[in-house]
Amino acid sequence: MAEAITPREQDYSQWYLDVIKSAKLADYSPVRGCMIIRPNGYSLWENMQAGLDGMFKETGHQNAYFPIFIPQSFLAREADHVEGFAKECAVVTHSRLKVDDEEGLIADPDSKLEENLIVRPTSETIIWDTYSRWIQSWRDLPILMNQWANVVRWEMRTRLFLRTMEFLWQEGHTAHATEQEAIDETLTILDVYARFAEEYMAVPVIRGVKTESERFAGAVETYCIEALMQDGKALQAGTSHFLGQNFAKAFDCQFQNKNNELEYVWATSWGVSTRLVGALIMVHSDDQGLILPPKLAPTQVALVPIYRKDEEKDNVLKAAREIETELKAAGVRIFVDDRDGFRPGWKFNEYEVQGVPIRLALGPRDVANGTVEVARRDTKEKQTVQRDGLVSHVQTTLENVQQSLFNKALANREAHTTSVDSYDEFKTTLDEKGGFVLMHWDGTNETEAQIKEETKATIRCIPVEGYEEEGVDPVSGKQSKGRVYYARAY
Amino acid sequence: MAEAITPREQDYSQWYLDVIKSAKLADYSPVRGCMIIRPNGYSLWENMQAGLDGMFKETGHQNAYFPIFIPQSFLAREADHVEGFAKECAVVTHSRLKVDDEEGLIADPDSKLEENLIVRPTSETIIWDTYSRWIQSWRDLPILMNQWANVVRWEMRTRLFLRTMEFLWQEGHTAHATEQEAIDETLTILDVYARFAEEYMAVPVIRGVKTESERFAGAVETYCIEALMQDGKALQAGTSHFLGQNFAKAFDCQFQNKNNELEYVWATSWGVSTRLVGALIMVHSDDQGLILPPKLAPTQVALVPIYRKDEEKDNVLKAAREIETELKAAGVRIFVDDRDGFRPGWKFNEYEVQGVPIRLALGPRDVANGTVEVARRDTKEKQTVQRDGLVSHVQTTLENVQQSLFNKALANREAHTTSVDSYDEFKTTLDEKGGFVLMHWDGTNETEAQIKEETKATIRCIPVEGYEEEGVDPVSGKQSKGRVYYARAY
Repeated sequence: MAEAITPREQDYSQWYLDVIKSAKLADYSPVRGCMIIRPNGYSLWENMQAGLDGMFKETGHQNAYFPIFIPQSFLAREADHVEGFAKECAVVTHSRLKVDDEEGLIADPDSKLEENLIVRPTSETIIWDTYSRWIQSWRDLPILMNQWANVVRWEMRTRLFLRTMEFLWQEGHTAHATEQEAIDETLTILDVYARFAEEYMAVPVIRGVKTESERFAGAVETYCIEALMQDGKALQAGTSHFLGQNFAKAFDCQFQNKNNELEYVWATSWGVSTRLVGALIMVHSDDQGLILPPKLAPTQVALVPIYRKDEEKDNVLKAAREIETELKAAGVRIFVDDRDGFRPGWKFNEYEVQGVPIRLALGPRDVANGTVEVARRDTKEKQTVQRDGLVSHVQTTLENVQQSLFNKALANREAHTTSVDSYDEFKTTLDEKGGFVLMHWDGTNETEAQIKEETKATIRCIPVEGYEEEGVDPVSGKQSKGRVYYARAY
Repeated sequence: MAEAITPREQDYSQWYLDVIKSAKLADYSPVRGCMIIRPNGYSLWENMQAGLDGMFKETGHQNAYFPIFIPQSFLAREADHVEGFAKECAVVTHSRLKVDDEEGLIADPDSKLEENLIVRPTSETIIWDTYSRWIQSWRDLPILMNQWANVVRWEMRTRLFLRTMEFLWQEGHTAHATEQEAIDETLTILDVYARFAEEYMAVPVIRGVKTESERFAGAVETYCIEALMQDGKALQAGTSHFLGQNFAKAFDCQFQNKNNELEYVWATSWGVSTRLVGALIMVHSDDQGLILPPKLAPTQVALVPIYRKDEEKDNVLKAAREIETELKAAGVRIFVDDRDGFRPGWKFNEYEVQGVPIRLALGPRDVANGTVEVARRDTKEKQTVQRDGLVSHVQTTLENVQQSLFNKALANREAHTTSVDSYDEFKTTLDEKGGFVLMHWDGTNETEAQIKEETKATIRCIPVEGYEEEGVDPVSGKQSKGRVYYARAY
């Protein structure tokens, strides 16, 4: 049997790591802060990629690939950008190793680079340098490009999936002739991200705008989706930046508009990462392990055949293969676990821990009666179903699981979203209940910083919808234009 | 109109670069030796990935992801391995940048790493370190893992796709309980690579074994597929390595076998890269630009609507959309180019340069007559076809193009494979005809090195099939067990 999973109530952080370990999603690596994504975790990421990639392509985007290395001087071109990333960079300084008699293997001093290279923390600079060569006229616009890549940010405190030194992500970089077009693109992507989170991940999200202090380094405006975890902490799940003309100016990227005038190009960038896997785990899983939404589950249905005698085995496996064929034909990702040497109980536990949405069991009596046992991972309900209607029963159940996970997460978020009118109530809510706290904000960095300092809560976002409401910031006593979402966050 | 493409006869190297540029496949980057893969090139790579990934999964492999950084000390554990890669490594030595009053932005000396990190040139070391923790018993074997990743090798002389400092690839790393199982795996993958090259890329390949001097650093045996380019030079298109127990010993990876004895694990690794895109270009394209095999072409059919008046436009576009719907339903990747502001002739040229296998043209007269013009990129044949049978005509033509590209490449290779019995004939053949030269080899490094020194030709491989034939090495006069493939190579 697998090692026990620490209950959430006892230690939420340890529970999270235990779920990852038990479900074989990821592992630590010998390089501090870098993780190994195991096949169970990677296939989840592949399914996320497939879903998002389809949505990007539907909205007119194309994939490309830019170099992993960025010349150090590029980073320095945009002032906010270098400020934001200089302190967490992997710096490549040499191109060879050699054996030194005293010190052993060292970076060969003769191979010192003329200019240091940075392992990309994000690719705005190298892409805008390229765009400045590709774009001359309004005819070259828009450029709607995305890349799937690895990036490195030298984080000191890391946690599997949520914050790692290297992570996998997609980064979109678009170029537009007008400000409005770029803003529209930023919002189109925000919508893609929100729909992906809700429809595929079954994770409800708040759509909002970041405050100045939480904005991406180099952006004019950062839009985001924010999700609530089961422990009442918020997690930023994706960001879409309107970059104005900042990078176009830094890399001198101008185009001739329809009036034959030179203008700087308008930009956006946007990204989601393997962090989403962390969000998925934290929102749905329970003390028995991982729970996966069917749309993203690498295996949607696991069938465990049960038998003792050889003649039973033949009959049961034959029926299992028939069921496999029927479900596969209906587009269901089914795995028949006919491995010898593992007991059915061990297999049941395995699929529970790994979060497979539906587990079927099929024994000799089932074969004789034309039935199958169907167990739902999320509710742990079991029922015996007639083989005849199995395909449609499975399909309906998968849809129900998907919807039910979303509903449960939404109900949890609603139960943990509190509107308050005093700073005392704000603090009590944070400490005793957690979750999102909606409170009026005067719009100043000072108040935001004070609250962060005193409560560790940050403004997660100014909501895109339902923001405007005249009021008073209870902390500063100043006028406020609306309530914003505060929370303690990952 | 696009810039002219240098004819192959005039300058083959320049022709290759011109084809890449005209077809918008890739671009140089500001980081020496790193390339930007543009959407046309990247979508080709995505199709290659999809084809290969399906074949890997069919043969039981799973994808995972290991860190980009490798501790310097890991590289040193396997003697041949460090020897092979130490001289071409991107070395990360610092984790921060800071502004220095005199020198500007510099790597912050206070952030010097305790141990240098290497940007992976390949991942055997970090993976075998991991496997040594994952594998205890024969029950944990085999492990059949693959990763899609970027790697960096500090090449001095680079060429787009064929040899770049950073490239994209897949690397498989498998662990087995027995030597025979590992050898079988090596050959299974060699077969996957050869079938992929021939069936998807329409590139015929020789399957062979590398000589000791061309073997992968750390391998016991390196299998390879070798292809012939139109200029008579060979290109190594994929390698599959039997690693014996070398990495298991270097990383102390032992398992308890069925007799409860400790044994070192047997290993393979194998990879193909974006270099395949270079091979694809070089094998099929012509002086008018790229030619793509339909199985990998991102767009298989481009339809250019032709009209002058608005009423013509409506009719033609309506018919074009109908054709699009029909072809899409049949699984054909069609693009209707209804862009305004570009003349049909310009579009025709665009699809020729970009290698789209079939170009359709549809004008008002075609709509009236129920016909479409069908032009084949590879043969430049045009014919007018009835709309009624268009779908099956297109499908058949795509199959014909695929087969015909393979046949042409095979005929070219056969015409440029020469069996020789003297060193003079060997040299003359290399200089006047190029291609593969089959000649007896005595099996020594000395003769191989002498021939390389004197003619720039290397042994591409000892063929897997049809090798054994007693004879004499005409260079050394020593006994030979068979003829091997020599060629000048990329």
